Amino acid sequence: MSEQSEPKARFLRACRRLPVDRTPIWFMRQAGRYMAEYRAIRAEHSLLDICHQPELAAEVTMQPVNAFDVDAAIIFADILLPLVPMGADLAYVKGEGPAISNPVRTKSDVAALKPAEARQSLGFVMEAIRLVREQLPEGVPLIGFAGAPFTVGSYLIEGGSSRSHVHAKGFMYSQENTWNALMDKLVDVTIDYLLAQVEAGAQVIQLFDSWVGELHPDDYRRYVQPHSARVLSAIGETGVPTIHFGTGTATILPDMKEAGGTVIGVDWRTPLDQAWELLGDDVAVQGNMDPTALFADPDILEQHVDRVLAAAAGRPGHIFNLGHGILPKTPVENVGAVVDMVHAKTARVEG
Amino acid sequence: MSEQSEPKARFLRACRRLPVDRTPIWFMRQAGRYMAEYRAIRAEHSLLDICHQPELAAEVTMQPVNAFDVDAAIIFADILLPLVPMGADLAYVKGEGPAISNPVRTKSDVAALKPAEARQSLGFVMEAIRLVREQLPEGVPLIGFAGAPFTVGSYLIEGGSSRSHVHAKGFMYSQENTWNALMDKLVDVTIDYLLAQVEAGAQVIQLFDSWVGELHPDDYRRYVQPHSARVLSAIGETGVPTIHFGTGTATILPDMKEAGGTVIGVDWRTPLDQAWELLGDDVAVQGNMDPTALFADPDILEQHVDRVLAAAAGRPGHIFNLGHGILPKTPVENVGAVVDMVHAKTARVEG
Repeated sequence: MSEQSEPKARFLRACRRLPVDRTPIWFMRQAGRYMAEYRAIRAEHSLLDICHQPELAAEVTMQPVNAFDVDAAIIFADILLPLVPMGADLAYVKGEGPAISNPVRTKSDVAALKPAEARQSLGFVMEAIRLVREQLPEGVPLIGFAGAPFTVGSYLIEGGSSRSHVHAKGFMYSQENTWNALMDKLVDVTIDYLLAQVEAGAQVIQLFDSWVGELHPDDYRRYVQPHSARVLSAIGETGVPTIHFGTGTATILPDMKEAGGTVIGVDWRTPLDQAWELLGDDVAVQGNMDPTALFADPDILEQHVDRVLAAAAGRPGHIFNLGHGILPKTPVENVGAVVDMVHAKTARVEG
Repeated sequence: MSEQSEPKARFLRACRRLPVDRTPIWFMRQAGRYMAEYRAIRAEHSLLDICHQPELAAEVTMQPVNAFDVDAAIIFADILLPLVPMGADLAYVKGEGPAISNPVRTKSDVAALKPAEARQSLGFVMEAIRLVREQLPEGVPLIGFAGAPFTVGSYLIEGGSSRSHVHAKGFMYSQENTWNALMDKLVDVTIDYLLAQVEAGAQVIQLFDSWVGELHPDDYRRYVQPHSARVLSAIGETGVPTIHFGTGTATILPDMKEAGGTVIGVDWRTPLDQAWELLGDDVAVQGNMDPTALFADPDILEQHVDRVLAAAAGRPGHIFNLGHGILPKTPVENVGAVVDMVHAKTARVEG
């Protein structure tokens, strides 16, 4: 398929560690509350409304592409969407984030989860992907995504966000067979959903394992790695590059790499030169400026950009990004400034 | 002073990397909601009430010492107490944790903070320390503590808990001189407070920098390390051992060690053998079982204990603890089981 011949887009080239004319850059959560255009739509529509209406999701996806010179778009969606057709009663509570009123805590809860069929139950995401692909300029590929089984499973067991992940980890430790059954169900749905995204036109897939840094490396290997590996391997077979992302992952980066990913997404706690030392040279790396640096004065902001570029210097396969998503009150002008700085500072003759 | 001659208590010996008859163990937040005795007192008194009444604080401090064979007590107090005499309007909101209604955001906010005099304004803590020392059995030393300037400063700037620490880091990045002025004030109050605790009878001091793992190593060195170092050096001069604790610190452990501490507290994300490799052999280490492991079945719980002991095996200067505080719904019988397991598994002939 076409993704396997040598790509032209800077972002796709970096995923494959090919030479690039400039370091590509995009931002996790680049469509979001820090943009006035997004807030205008959110004033009229809930988060889930936007996800459910392909025209709105496509419009929101395009907002940062139109506003900044970013090198990729990411489809507007939510990592918890696949839980709804599986049977989760999901709502977004103002100021508190996601809430699932029927959390999964027992073997029979797991047995009751339905095997969702993504093309049918989440067809609105695929429709949004098709709409965005029609609008995207050449050279700006579209990223599809899903939450990884541990992170999605944690939300499902906790019933929402958690600092300690005590229910999820307690479940994992005390009901290992049921945990594996839950992971298997989530993996099946996730693979089906991501393959549908690729079919619809997603050119790269990011797997968000945002909370996986909460685990001891031994626990990661025992309870999580095989399940993430199954997702990444199934998507990798399509020839589409995969980005495997987590936060707080300093001690599990080699294990995440072993689970898979054309690119490993690293948060700001691990300088990229250290990350590459742990990962080896045969994988691309995405990251990793602290999202709060976007709140700094211009000179300090530039120091943060330089710090990331210096740690990545001389290596093929760096995609500039934050270490986690853009925060809601981020000054919008700083986002554009970082895009332009990264492009200007990394302009190369070759490529 | 007596602390500098060779101590007998197992916990004090481990702090100094002297041979011990068994690995000492205590738990962060060992006095807390998981104990029925504690809940009985909390049913009648608020958290701050207990702190303010030395008899109650002493009673609560003794509860885990009476219930389990732990090798240290830690005075019952709250890391935010010193902020109150400085001018913070602190309350505890049910289910949400600490709330400061007048957060510090500007240069004049920092200027308005009062230089608290701990012996006067926080005398109730010192009185509780004196009461506990009278009750403690020989062989169970008392730990005093304070929050480190970054962690306490983050609460003060955010006005409470925060996942992103965006206000604190934005302040740090954009108002560096004012940030340093704030840190200086917090350091002065913290040193005064901790010296008063030592005078009152605290035999070890733990500095809690719980959220410092949110920082890039360069930011830690620039904005935090000198301030923590000033606290740890002032307390170190008394001859009392210090424990320097943080979570998510895999990439800043060497910098934390450079800031100071007789013992470095490590969370569960960094296996202790890796931690020691980063820290070197000339420092003791405390930790680091995942607090959620206490929710596991007995056989899995034992695997977690064994994992920590194996990673620490053969090294002098290991203090068994969790990687962070005991969680509120922890099964109380598992706490006692871990104490007994650690003592039984590490019993030595010498010492």
